[in-house]
Amino acid sequence: MLRVTVWGENVHEQKHQVVRDHYPDGMHNCIADGLREDKGFEVRTATLQDDEHGLTEDVLEHTDVLTWWGHTAHAAVEDEIVDRVQARVLQGMGLIVLHSGHYSKIFRRLMGTTCSLTWREAGEKERLWVCNAGHPIAQGIDRYFEIENTEMYGEPFAVPAPDETVFVSWFEGGEVFRSGLCYRRSNGKIFYFRPGHETYPIYHHSTVKQVIKNAVKWVAPEGTRWIDSCPGIALEDAPESLESKGGSVH
Amino acid sequence: MLRVTVWGENVHEQKHQVVRDHYPDGMHNCIADGLREDKGFEVRTATLQDDEHGLTEDVLEHTDVLTWWGHTAHAAVEDEIVDRVQARVLQGMGLIVLHSGHYSKIFRRLMGTTCSLTWREAGEKERLWVCNAGHPIAQGIDRYFEIENTEMYGEPFAVPAPDETVFVSWFEGGEVFRSGLCYRRSNGKIFYFRPGHETYPIYHHSTVKQVIKNAVKWVAPEGTRWIDSCPGIALEDAPESLESKGGSVH
Amino acid sequence: MLRVTVWGENVHEQKHQVVRDHYPDGMHNCIADGLREDKGFEVRTATLQDDEHGLTEDVLEHTDVLTWWGHTAHAAVEDEIVDRVQARVLQGMGLIVLHSGHYSKIFRRLMGTTCSLTWREAGEKERLWVCNAGHPIAQGIDRYFEIENTEMYGEPFAVPAPDETVFVSWFEGGEVFRSGLCYRRSNGKIFYFRPGHETYPIYHHSTVKQVIKNAVKWVAPEGTRWIDSCPGIALEDAPESLESKGGSVH
Amino acid sequence: MLRVTVWGENVHEQKHQVVRDHYPDGMHNCIADGLREDKGFEVRTATLQDDEHGLTEDVLEHTDVLTWWGHTAHAAVEDEIVDRVQARVLQGMGLIVLHSGHYSKIFRRLMGTTCSLTWREAGEKERLWVCNAGHPIAQGIDRYFEIENTEMYGEPFAVPAPDETVFVSWFEGGEVFRSGLCYRRSNGKIFYFRPGHETYPIYHHSTVKQVIKNAVKWVAPEGTRWIDSCPGIALEDAPESLESKGGSVH
Repeated sequence: MLRVTVWGENVHEQKHQVVRDHYPDGMHNCIADGLREDKGFEVRTATLQDDEHGLTEDVLEHTDVLTWWGHTAHAAVEDEIVDRVQARVLQGMGLIVLHSGHYSKIFRRLMGTTCSLTWREAGEKERLWVCNAGHPIAQGIDRYFEIENTEMYGEPFAVPAPDETVFVSWFEGGEVFRSGLCYRRSNGKIFYFRPGHETYPIYHHSTVKQVIKNAVKWVAPEGTRWIDSCPGIALEDAPESLESKGGSVH
Repeated sequence: MLRVTVWGENVHEQKHQVVRDHYPDGMHNCIADGLREDKGFEVRTATLQDDEHGLTEDVLEHTDVLTWWGHTAHAAVEDEIVDRVQARVLQGMGLIVLHSGHYSKIFRRLMGTTCSLTWREAGEKERLWVCNAGHPIAQGIDRYFEIENTEMYGEPFAVPAPDETVFVSWFEGGEVFRSGLCYRRSNGKIFYFRPGHETYPIYHHSTVKQVIKNAVKWVAPEGTRWIDSCPGIALEDAPESLESKGGSVH
Repeated sequence: MLRVTVWGENVHEQKHQVVRDHYPDGMHNCIADGLREDKGFEVRTATLQDDEHGLTEDVLEHTDVLTWWGHTAHAAVEDEIVDRVQARVLQGMGLIVLHSGHYSKIFRRLMGTTCSLTWREAGEKERLWVCNAGHPIAQGIDRYFEIENTEMYGEPFAVPAPDETVFVSWFEGGEVFRSGLCYRRSNGKIFYFRPGHETYPIYHHSTVKQVIKNAVKWVAPEGTRWIDSCPGIALEDAPESLESKGGSVH
Repeated sequence: MLRVTVWGENVHEQKHQVVRDHYPDGMHNCIADGLREDKGFEVRTATLQDDEHGLTEDVLEHTDVLTWWGHTAHAAVEDEIVDRVQARVLQGMGLIVLHSGHYSKIFRRLMGTTCSLTWREAGEKERLWVCNAGHPIAQGIDRYFEIENTEMYGEPFAVPAPDETVFVSWFEGGEVFRSGLCYRRSNGKIFYFRPGHETYPIYHHSTVKQVIKNAVKWVAPEGTRWIDSCPGIALEDAPESLESKGGSVH
């Protein structure tokens, strides 16, 4: 059983009827329901409004994969919680960052760059092309899939060179975007997936749901947890016998 | 003329005679003097104790390459200054991170990982092997060079996979370390170089000086500045003519 | 002075009037003339029909950057010449592979993959987006540039993950393609650039010419030549003193 | 059940008693026996002397992971068989290249570089350090493990920058080497693992056996097979409706 925690900002849903129309229970619950179609996943949700944003030590301790959607309230996420999530990713917890999560504290923290892009909200068509037809995240998808109405994200996307590019998007308005990107950071795997604006029913789209399910499996921990702590190695623990030489401030 | 700013924490030098013995004017001045051997560099220094740590908007605006040495006072570096340095690196300013700078705020920020490692201060011998004999940073160096007394840094080094590995170190006590690593982040180049403990005269070592000079040239901006700002693209600025469709919260 | 050799297959030009109309002196001469606009380049050409395809030991010895265009006659390039070009790239000579050169022996050799893609010759519009506005290869280009009539190349492009993605293309017919890719292989830099079909005047396009000029500077050797030969290290040349132990077949 | 084919050159074993002493049934059978300790693997062997080197279309079709050991007879491997193995790797078959396999046709083909290194056969001690303690390939291993007598391989190792570095070696004679390297090429995963000289009982070493077992699981296909063929896309199959424009040689 893969233990998945779906994190949602859950702000637009409270304020805008157009969002509620598509996501009456919130976007996080829609994403969670999509994942529950896979019987190998045990799925729970957490939101900004929960205590510690729902990401307590205990929750993260029992999470194999975390998905992240935020947009309007990135700044409201406590730095201490971001520290905690970052630490778990580096130890091996998988992370899927969705759409406007490109500007979340956790994604910018892990990338080290601004993660900026260009954008336009005009409900235009997007076509996502598969760059490696055999990739685990592209399973069950043909050469491409389309989203009829979406917000456009365009290049340049200010992220480090990805380990793998799984999807590149074509937009009706003339732009392109690297829409599915794989990263490894220390012992954790990260997948950025572009689709998902709040004013369109994108998380009801069957292929979008399929990709997120595939991505959960791909980012899931493969090895064991790695806790790194910059340990000093005592002289007598050197693999080769050694005598201390030279100065020290200690 | 490449404009280089050498940043030094300048704390050990104030407190410990053993450090002052090697670096009577501070480590930063020793590093700066080494760089001044190259007549193509215009070199200044800045320290933690200066106003804004010596890294004002104006200084950074006129800096092509920044070198960073810190150890005991990483936490004393103001986050606002780290933001500023990070922004300039992503725009194209080169950055060289030296030795214990692996744990500086700026390096951890740009890497997105803990940057931890193992260590031992026993004055043991280090031998740095060149992994690409033709690399600009390895110019003028034979197959390897040695540092007679140094602090050991050992694997695992918790950083993202580098774009290029220029040096790998062998230690007398039995450890190894990836000692010269190249990264590109947005429009900036970063070089991490391991040698440089405060209790040994390492920045007087002629090959160490050579590597830092080479690295300044390699990390120097190649193109133009890139300021990224996540711009919205108006409907009428879409390259292809487009009509707005679907909902919006705006 | 950067010494550039422009290699052209020079076959279509002999056979098809439509190609001759755009390139009366052959595509290689058009590409070479574009490069000659930069007074820092010393440019010569070489073609498939020349002795040793014009790529003698002497020519390659005095070449800093080689550009490669081929399409219909990849198989006619002698393996021995490909070996020679590959060796020089690994030593540090820059290589720019243009358009249908994706299927050349030399590019597939250096990539290790099939380098396949999808394609359509319908004279459709291509728009190339810049992914890093500050990159040396993108200098002088706005957010994007367009080619009015071109052959389409679409994803998946079966190449290893690039070190940097400089351009991504949007096509009128609905496809996308990673059109400007940077690689480092041993001591050589490689740039793949998509534009350039033989039946359109693409190498007369001012921005295409600009990109190729920029790319010459970017792939040019930065350090020194690296000739690697798998040398055995004698026992007495070990940096640490050592006695021979164990068996041997020698 | 993962289907593993262990390929062995099987030449030294026929010629040298010192090799036969350690590997009376050949090195390939020793490696295969080590893998058979994992009940999830179905293991067979193939050698240079077999018809089609034991790597028929049928065998490769039913192989999930191939391990490769060769040394003295790389040139005797038929190019046609190398083509076949390369094609299968790019489609998704995992490949583990052992020790002197660094100079095999298949490894050099997939890397695109010379794959050269320095070496010394003096039976010295090697200590392999783990660079990511949580990595699937490092499972069950402490911070390092040692091989008492081995041939030395030293940097520079002329390979492309790896996706991940799992092990770095320290040698008694003073050299270092990147000993465990991960690559992805198209849809296939490749692991290079340094230990394994023919004159020492290295494939009887329990940790070496453990690493190879771990590596089989890591390189095993994750998704589906990807057969790429550079397909032309007919005008009427363009996702966006399109009319043909401009010239053509067809």
